[in-house]
Amino acid sequence: MECDPFREVRVPFKAVKGGITAARGFRAAAISCGIKNPEATRLDLALIASDAPTVTEAVYTTNKVRAACVRVSQSHIRESDTRAIIANSGNANACTGPQGIQDAKAMCKAAAEALGVRMRQIQVCSTGIIGMTMPIGRITPRVAELASKLSPTGSDDAAAAIMTSDTRPKSYSIEVPCGSGSFRIGGIAKGAGMICPNMATMLCFITTDARISADELKRAVRCAVDQSFNCITIDGDTSTNDTVVVMSNGLAEAPAIRKGSDEAKIFRCALHKVMLELAKMIVADGERVTKFVEIRVRNARTHADARKVAEAVAKSMLVKCSWHGSDPNWGRVIHAVGYSGARIREELIDIYFGGLLACKGGLTSGTPVGELEKVVREPRFSVTIDLNLGNANHIVYTSDLSEAYVDFNSSEYSAAVHSRRQKGLA
Amino acid sequence: MECDPFREVRVPFKAVKGGITAARGFRAAAISCGIKNPEATRLDLALIASDAPTVTEAVYTTNKVRAACVRVSQSHIRESDTRAIIANSGNANACTGPQGIQDAKAMCKAAAEALGVRMRQIQVCSTGIIGMTMPIGRITPRVAELASKLSPTGSDDAAAAIMTSDTRPKSYSIEVPCGSGSFRIGGIAKGAGMICPNMATMLCFITTDARISADELKRAVRCAVDQSFNCITIDGDTSTNDTVVVMSNGLAEAPAIRKGSDEAKIFRCALHKVMLELAKMIVADGERVTKFVEIRVRNARTHADARKVAEAVAKSMLVKCSWHGSDPNWGRVIHAVGYSGARIREELIDIYFGGLLACKGGLTSGTPVGELEKVVREPRFSVTIDLNLGNANHIVYTSDLSEAYVDFNSSEYSAAVHSRRQKGLA
Repeated sequence: MECDPFREVRVPFKAVKGGITAARGFRAAAISCGIKNPEATRLDLALIASDAPTVTEAVYTTNKVRAACVRVSQSHIRESDTRAIIANSGNANACTGPQGIQDAKAMCKAAAEALGVRMRQIQVCSTGIIGMTMPIGRITPRVAELASKLSPTGSDDAAAAIMTSDTRPKSYSIEVPCGSGSFRIGGIAKGAGMICPNMATMLCFITTDARISADELKRAVRCAVDQSFNCITIDGDTSTNDTVVVMSNGLAEAPAIRKGSDEAKIFRCALHKVMLELAKMIVADGERVTKFVEIRVRNARTHADARKVAEAVAKSMLVKCSWHGSDPNWGRVIHAVGYSGARIREELIDIYFGGLLACKGGLTSGTPVGELEKVVREPRFSVTIDLNLGNANHIVYTSDLSEAYVDFNSSEYSAAVHSRRQKGLA
Repeated sequence: MECDPFREVRVPFKAVKGGITAARGFRAAAISCGIKNPEATRLDLALIASDAPTVTEAVYTTNKVRAACVRVSQSHIRESDTRAIIANSGNANACTGPQGIQDAKAMCKAAAEALGVRMRQIQVCSTGIIGMTMPIGRITPRVAELASKLSPTGSDDAAAAIMTSDTRPKSYSIEVPCGSGSFRIGGIAKGAGMICPNMATMLCFITTDARISADELKRAVRCAVDQSFNCITIDGDTSTNDTVVVMSNGLAEAPAIRKGSDEAKIFRCALHKVMLELAKMIVADGERVTKFVEIRVRNARTHADARKVAEAVAKSMLVKCSWHGSDPNWGRVIHAVGYSGARIREELIDIYFGGLLACKGGLTSGTPVGELEKVVREPRFSVTIDLNLGNANHIVYTSDLSEAYVDFNSSEYSAAVHSRRQKGLA
């Protein structure tokens, strides 16, 4: 039942529909405000609210440059319980100074008024370009309308509204038997660029109707984030806006989850399952990604060493280029293992592509390259690095690096500034 | 006279021709052995020898996966003085096990016999693909012929022979007045892929006729490497084969360089100058590089912080993509500053493209984006990040990330294996 990254979590859950509104007493909605572009009609402002008071836990970016919305949300959660999340795409409200703080607070104020709660009970999240002030005049006047649309079937709209360069919405929800009843956990996420261990330009909102104490929820969230969102990397960049918010309102017909109980273990694993599924969706939909690769490190001396090796391999540009070209280049993998900083013994290292041994004891295994190529040609495969030194394991989920990624990321700022100027908004 | 990265070194030197053979008593040569491909006629085996005994200092890769040649060279330099370097391109002799060690020793033995010195007096270096055994039967029988070609004008051949994906040879040499006479320092280098702080798939050989003690040479080499090769990054990968070897034979008509003397300072700065020029050539000729970018970090709290910031910005894929697209995306720069791990205060950070302020106190400066684009459109420009916190500075030299880099690096291993198999060499 513990969070072992080498074992899919075994909780007797069933997948259910509903995403962020799968759990009882949560509603969601989204509208189009033209945040990035006043003429655009795509959904870009979402609201997620609980009908009942919640116990809420959140994890924010470790980047020392923090978006205004992150600062405001952090101060709110320190002072108060939470009733709702307001989130926009199209502008990150980062590097926007005192004006940015004012804008983030204005979003909270508008949401609080529309919902009849206090401003501090609102979490605010933004994602999009850095360094431009929010078009707040197109946002706050629309929040009452947004709140009036809140619905127990609003999850898909909310998931769509937080997308930036994502090509598809990300949503996952499960129902978990617990005692004589059951609880639900569901969530939505967005990712696409700047995805890296220790969070990413990544937003993830999760709701549950489980009844759980703040302490127990905090432990479960820390563990689940560490084993899911902190195990993915697309380009090694960590953003200014990353946020995971988990709200629980206790409305499920299931026993309260108490510290040390079996229910606590079940909840922890179920939360991990939801986060891991959303995290994998983020990698698979990374910017211009063509391969989803699971880097499995086995038998390191310590877990920290296992993590170092997995991250070094996952972040190596040369390794990522080889995935892209379906090239089973184990030499590049072992060289990244070598500079990872972990304790290794070159002559003990085995490397597998899928189930096929490519490198045995630091040397070529003799497996025909054509066989190895078949594995790497697949859109999803695993690379296992067995250090044969200890018994600590770690998995990182990552992607290839494509020419299209480079092209896609080579003109964001100029394009945005010019587009705003053309529209008279600069 | 100290190695301040913000000041070009001011030694009264003059550039001279000659590269690795510019200094008295050094000769070089190269031949074509068809190491990568038996039909190819490009130079791929080089020899550099001193006519007189030398004091030699070397720095090797920090990668824990070390090529066989690195292991052999390290053991030789611990036990003996050095008289010559034998170096090949086309095969890295890395991940080649006991056979690799035997092959590296065979190269040393052949060179030692041809030169009439002891085997331990030879440094051996290899660069090329990882994980394939050396075609040693095409190498050792040719070493006597190679030695017979040694010449005081052989530098260009040697520089060409160590190239892999480099598009041009890298060579630099200077003459430095010293007391009533002068000494010379010259070198050759190769780089192109896997270039990163803490060395790279990078070979650099330097010779000098200055008369210097082993201790003083060691200090000078450590300082110069730290301020040159450890300040460049192309793709953030560190190779298994990196080596810098500096040989001094004392044949110059100049005073001996004593610890603490003015001559010692002159020598240190001159060596730094030669290494820095070669390091910059490596970046400018990085694999499919279209931009050469100098990241200047000013006024960090400590030098370690300055280095962290410069390296985080230089290694960020998103930042490198923006260089490639001539996009003055200061938001990506500041987000990399934020996750660098250095102490920063967002509201104090200024960012310049060339001389133009893009970000002032963490906010957009108001400089028209068209002006900033003009800077970033140039093939060479600087980005200055002023943290306004302390007085420590650091520079890193880096490049953009191009679609062509990805394409170039997506099929090396498969291509090499298939090519060997077609030729019946697998």
